[in-house]
Amino acid sequence: MTNDAKPDFNFEGFVCPLPLRDYPQIVMGHGSGGRMSNDLVKHLFLPLFDNAALRSLNDQAVLAMPLDGGRLAFTTDSFVVNPLFFPGGDIGQLAVHGTVNDLAVSGATPLYLSAGFILEEGLKMDTLGQIVTNMARAAQEAGVQVVTGDTKVVERGHGDGLYINTSGVGIVPPGVDIAAQNIQPGDAVIVSGMLGDHGVAVMSVREGLDFDVDVASDTAPLNGLVAAMLEASANIHAMRDCTRGGLAASLNELAQASRVGVVFDERAAPVRPAVRAACEMLGLDPLYVANEGKLVAFVARADADAVLAAMRAHPLGADAAIIGEAAAEHPGLVAARTGIGGRRVVDMPLGVLLPRIC
Amino acid sequence: MTNDAKPDFNFEGFVCPLPLRDYPQIVMGHGSGGRMSNDLVKHLFLPLFDNAALRSLNDQAVLAMPLDGGRLAFTTDSFVVNPLFFPGGDIGQLAVHGTVNDLAVSGATPLYLSAGFILEEGLKMDTLGQIVTNMARAAQEAGVQVVTGDTKVVERGHGDGLYINTSGVGIVPPGVDIAAQNIQPGDAVIVSGMLGDHGVAVMSVREGLDFDVDVASDTAPLNGLVAAMLEASANIHAMRDCTRGGLAASLNELAQASRVGVVFDERAAPVRPAVRAACEMLGLDPLYVANEGKLVAFVARADADAVLAAMRAHPLGADAAIIGEAAAEHPGLVAARTGIGGRRVVDMPLGVLLPRIC
Repeated sequence: MTNDAKPDFNFEGFVCPLPLRDYPQIVMGHGSGGRMSNDLVKHLFLPLFDNAALRSLNDQAVLAMPLDGGRLAFTTDSFVVNPLFFPGGDIGQLAVHGTVNDLAVSGATPLYLSAGFILEEGLKMDTLGQIVTNMARAAQEAGVQVVTGDTKVVERGHGDGLYINTSGVGIVPPGVDIAAQNIQPGDAVIVSGMLGDHGVAVMSVREGLDFDVDVASDTAPLNGLVAAMLEASANIHAMRDCTRGGLAASLNELAQASRVGVVFDERAAPVRPAVRAACEMLGLDPLYVANEGKLVAFVARADADAVLAAMRAHPLGADAAIIGEAAAEHPGLVAARTGIGGRRVVDMPLGVLLPRIC
Repeated sequence: MTNDAKPDFNFEGFVCPLPLRDYPQIVMGHGSGGRMSNDLVKHLFLPLFDNAALRSLNDQAVLAMPLDGGRLAFTTDSFVVNPLFFPGGDIGQLAVHGTVNDLAVSGATPLYLSAGFILEEGLKMDTLGQIVTNMARAAQEAGVQVVTGDTKVVERGHGDGLYINTSGVGIVPPGVDIAAQNIQPGDAVIVSGMLGDHGVAVMSVREGLDFDVDVASDTAPLNGLVAAMLEASANIHAMRDCTRGGLAASLNELAQASRVGVVFDERAAPVRPAVRAACEMLGLDPLYVANEGKLVAFVARADADAVLAAMRAHPLGADAAIIGEAAAEHPGLVAARTGIGGRRVVDMPLGVLLPRIC
């Protein structure tokens, strides 16, 4: 496909264009499907996301898909993170990265995204502009295009500024078969880096829980890292990006889907000291805290060192570590080897640790 | 592809399954990505939307796509209709039909949908169950599968029960090229049926505007009707479903995209007497009122009668009518021939006539 996004578009210093400038805030009319909706599309979304499919202004994108015997990956994610901006990112970047990552961990090359905005009446146009600018930049950096979209407006008090849905499509190349069901006993468990950064970064700025910690969200597109991993091995069996519920939720879901046990060394799971300290203060376990740029992979033992080396050679995998293995015993259960030589069950989180984290 | 949805699933009488019954209302934990999120997926979404891709419980669907030289259609739509239930439908059906229709009017065969739910804490589980039941039934009737999804929960007071995003993919067969840009002067303008039903149905039950009118929403999947039209002619140039902003917005968008003028006979545009009466009472023009099961098509003059006949033979096109034509004059403008022999410009609606209509 052609990536015709302008490579030198100036993403810095968003300035509200005319005629949007006449409306410093979102009003109900911006969701009407009439001229004000068109203004948003033509003066905000189109210039920033610029590409051929979007320029056609149809209610759908029609795309040549070079499947070449591969399969289509299709995913969706809604983002309700609070606050909209946090250290290391904002809801717009998160919306792009989240969907790119959900595609990437299936082994797919992410290609196209949709963007659905639910805007709250009164949202500052400059805030929307900044968020869409950051989305566009994130999409360009991840090598994907936002090809179709939709905007709705709800009355003041019925949202939180904005909610964003991104859906995405990509191509799983022929021969690639990475799925939650495919883990084999003996597979190595590899995490791609430091755990818990996103959750702690969001909590650090959330009203009422402001504590002094210098942690930025790890929000990042993982498709480049995954491509490097796929290059290193044809025996990656399962991958998941560890978002809500953290590494613990991902491991539990995968263990259950493949009916294997998982055992890992708690001390091997990489966590920044600042994140560990913040989690202790809040009574949280970093294994359960959200990430937005980390994945866990189950890889055939024979290939584990090669995959680990490929990951460490990538900027987003510099802290990657083999932390454990899949086992035939206790299928569906995840256990951690603790520092003092014991074992504890790392259960699926029941409810909510950190609400509105993505 | 295989449609493995259970044909005999009992969609009537939704009963909240265990363990959801322990939670008569949505709580924040249902959006945590933990066990409560899983309960929603396993006991509500999976049984109702049941299909192979969803059963795999991956964060994305991986799908064989029989493109066969065709192209991929991809679209997204968020639904914030208020109230959630209205005469003739609910937000769930609307979410399925809206996305199916956005795919269909590109000439695509809709295949797969995603569903992203933003739930408000306190939403009754029975209400969610009923809406998801209706979505599942609508999907089955339209011949599409909901293959991937996402659920987020926001605090009480930060939503309106629920917002739904549906995105969708379909296949545009080789040789089919229907787009807003393709209208030729001389093309006939065909509408598929009675205009304004959806908008009036929603308004009829909206708080404070309760008036005595027996109009049901026209919400319906248009892919069957479009298939019949494509069978009748290879010269359908452009189509659009007339949702927010009504026929007037669709005609204006298409006239501008193709740089043609559009002239139509106001008396030929089919409107139910009850809808006309309600619109007069509210000071609305039915041409601007939303539909959720109507399309407008621009068809080569020579094929117009054949397409009209095919439409009238389909239950959703029984009231189809040729209402006007595209012209080389006044490109980008839409004019109506009025009952008294004059002409008036039917402009793009500026702002909002009926907020939260879809």
